[in-house]
Amino acid sequence: MEQADRVEVLLVEDNPDDAELTMHALRLGDNKINLLHLNDGAEALNFVFAKKSFENKRIQNDLKLVLLDLKLPKIDGLEILKRIREDERTRTLPVVILTSSREKKDIATAYNLGVNSYVVKPVEFEFYVHVVKTLTLYWNTINEKPIGQI
Amino acid sequence: MEQADRVEVLLVEDNPDDAELTMHALRLGDNKINLLHLNDGAEALNFVFAKKSFENKRIQNDLKLVLLDLKLPKIDGLEILKRIREDERTRTLPVVILTSSREKKDIATAYNLGVNSYVVKPVEFEFYVHVVKTLTLYWNTINEKPIGQI
Repeated sequence: MEQADRVEVLLVEDNPDDAELTMHALRLGDNKINLLHLNDGAEALNFVFAKKSFENKRIQNDLKLVLLDLKLPKIDGLEILKRIREDERTRTLPVVILTSSREKKDIATAYNLGVNSYVVKPVEFEFYVHVVKTLTLYWNTINEKPIGQI
Repeated sequence: MEQADRVEVLLVEDNPDDAELTMHALRLGDNKINLLHLNDGAEALNFVFAKKSFENKRIQNDLKLVLLDLKLPKIDGLEILKRIREDERTRTLPVVILTSSREKKDIATAYNLGVNSYVVKPVEFEFYVHVVKTLTLYWNTINEKPIGQI
């Protein structure tokens, strides 16, 4: 579990191609980034709340960003966001939605649930890399993360 | 008031040197940015809520980001953030704190009030420009703004 203790960015993405491309671009934004990729919503919540397969991870960790897809197996992105915001220990944890959905309803719901930022996945490869690289640079090196998070 | 109708980024900063540097860097991030700089908190709230000198601006505008200093004349940054979050019309408007304060209390209060992001002003000139440029690029061109904001 030592690796999981120092995770800075948690990527929750079920599409293998998108996950690979996003991880590649995340590393371009910060090549020393400690990244964990999970591909279902239940595992993501287990990680964030240190349950089940992650029950031995230490509670105070270095998480600076949870990068969430919307459509995910078991528990979807909006439900994960809701549970993170409802829990006092993770209420202010930075969460960014990274999705292919540009639907007004998804954008409105995410903001109403308290997402920090909502990013639509660009279709074009080079622009996708640019967007995710800038996103990492911003949340991992420029944003000051909240104090005392899980 | 036509100019004020199309504002994408509202910068609230009372220090003239910081304001000039920030505006320079914001334009490097997006040279077509429509930027409004105000130097006190009361004017910032008048702009956001279309009151007093801004009462004729149209309600639906293009605001993508409010960039707030913490220490401001008349009404401080945290109070502005609080009033933006309390009003249904602006509750989800992206707000980023840009400040010289790295105090835990300020960071915690800002996140507890629902700030989207908290950025500490770098001391070194070139890094300051890099940070503000990335910040603009992120909030003005990558983040999907909420729907139906004031």
